[in-house]
Amino acid sequence: MKYSPLFWPIELKEDRILILDETKLPQEVSYIEAKDYLEACSAIKDMKTRAVGQVILVMYTFLLEVRKNKQADLKKVAEAINATRPTLSFKFLTDMMLGWVESGEPLEKYINGFLEGLKYARIRQAEEAARLFNDEDVVLTHCNVSGLLPLIAQICAKENKKISFFVTETRPYLQGSRLTAWELMEAGIDTTIICDDMVAQVMSEGKIKKVIVGADNLAQNGDFANKIGTYQIAILAKHFNIPFFVLCPPVAKAKTGRDINLEIRPDEELLEYHGIRLAPKNAKAYYPAFDITPNELVTKHIFLKIQDMAMKISKPDYGME
Amino acid sequence: MKYSPLFWPIELKEDRILILDETKLPQEVSYIEAKDYLEACSAIKDMKTRAVGQVILVMYTFLLEVRKNKQADLKKVAEAINATRPTLSFKFLTDMMLGWVESGEPLEKYINGFLEGLKYARIRQAEEAARLFNDEDVVLTHCNVSGLLPLIAQICAKENKKISFFVTETRPYLQGSRLTAWELMEAGIDTTIICDDMVAQVMSEGKIKKVIVGADNLAQNGDFANKIGTYQIAILAKHFNIPFFVLCPPVAKAKTGRDINLEIRPDEELLEYHGIRLAPKNAKAYYPAFDITPNELVTKHIFLKIQDMAMKISKPDYGME
Repeated sequence: MKYSPLFWPIELKEDRILILDETKLPQEVSYIEAKDYLEACSAIKDMKTRAVGQVILVMYTFLLEVRKNKQADLKKVAEAINATRPTLSFKFLTDMMLGWVESGEPLEKYINGFLEGLKYARIRQAEEAARLFNDEDVVLTHCNVSGLLPLIAQICAKENKKISFFVTETRPYLQGSRLTAWELMEAGIDTTIICDDMVAQVMSEGKIKKVIVGADNLAQNGDFANKIGTYQIAILAKHFNIPFFVLCPPVAKAKTGRDINLEIRPDEELLEYHGIRLAPKNAKAYYPAFDITPNELVTKHIFLKIQDMAMKISKPDYGME
Repeated sequence: MKYSPLFWPIELKEDRILILDETKLPQEVSYIEAKDYLEACSAIKDMKTRAVGQVILVMYTFLLEVRKNKQADLKKVAEAINATRPTLSFKFLTDMMLGWVESGEPLEKYINGFLEGLKYARIRQAEEAARLFNDEDVVLTHCNVSGLLPLIAQICAKENKKISFFVTETRPYLQGSRLTAWELMEAGIDTTIICDDMVAQVMSEGKIKKVIVGADNLAQNGDFANKIGTYQIAILAKHFNIPFFVLCPPVAKAKTGRDINLEIRPDEELLEYHGIRLAPKNAKAYYPAFDITPNELVTKHIFLKIQDMAMKISKPDYGME
């Protein structure tokens, strides 16, 4: 099984962290280096990595600083990370790191244990998802689920089930066409890109058998936050009677979707693309970056089951895009 | 009342037709000239004008040729126009022109009568639509309705009803952000642009009071074809219990939406934007340019009522985007 580079986009070398630069995809697969926590913070600020990549990067950043200096001021590191993106909560992760430090055990042991647990839990999650698909299924997805979809398709293929994908562009950041279509095509999986406004038409033509998406934040009642656009796909799937699956992160502290804070991002990110103006000068926009899909629209949650010593101490609540 | 340039985007001077170049909007308001039917056909092929602009342009093209030469070969003109865009039916319009020519009366009289009737019918349609809105209504729209929305908002304003708009981008051609947002802003109307994947979220936040869209083709049972993305907005409006209005063209010959042919356009138009690649090399896409919204999702059809001698002879069936 060959993993998508997005499945585990961060590597730790002796004295530096290698970060897959997602902003360059799909034109270029390149890694940038972070030699200290300041460079790691810059990579987060510049959105070089997202989702699971941010979790791994935060952990490796602590590890790198401790390797370089056993007396490193990790509170300063935590503060710098927390400040990278004001509306995303890195605090839970950095608090977890500081908690591990205080426990007295070597931080490396915790982090490696946690990340190994995370990696295997993701593989098991893909295996569980693969069981939901049949041969010839055409599956619609939105945004990007960090390497899980190519893995699911490859597990299906091993069981002689061929599945193919329709991928929404996912405006304005185009994670669907830039990342998901790319990683699926790299894995040799049949992939068709559509615009976000074509979902109902494609469903009404009978082209879509199932929908699967990721989640950034899972509330205790089954509501989940994910990239903007997920909610309306769930409503449309219900309308057309198409099963809707969600690949979940660990359950967060939020009781319901109402307790999850949603990031509103700057207008300009949807009014311009790579320097090209898409709208009139002085136009106003509204850019909610995430939405909440209520539990009742979900056919099945596919949970991430991390079994690891570190996880028994605390549960992560990483609300990443 | 100041009309949007998109309300009547074509002008006939003595020896040439002036065509508002919609591909340059909103950066530049400029007109290109057509001195004969071949130049007019080029403008149609290059999508310089759309919707009602195409109807006016076809009629003025016949008029221009007849003015230049009373013995002009109008069948050749009709054939050239029909061939401009294979999947759009200009044939009904050009057949109507040829029928008028055969009737023996001066073509100019028919065409001017028809276009005057069309213009006043559009104004009456805007007046009828304006009655559906209340003060402070926030109205969602999709794609572009050729100048009708600014007119509706201005009629409302005269009656001391202030309405504002949310406009979807309308990928891939961005008629929403490029044309609708522009003409609304030009008319001084409060306008907010969102991406096509933000509709459910914005509705769920209670921001949208009503939806209004145009139609390219209206079937006899009330189903209608419009720019791709309209159908899913209608489903979402129903889900959130928001009234959904449609500004209709004259009723076509199609009995139901199933009888309307939908244009599938080239993949590349959604995989690239102004030379910037949005997707991986060799990516495959699917681009249905229109969809059909079933009658049962429509709260109210606002009909175009053309009362004119020419209209009694034949009804247009113009399936323009």
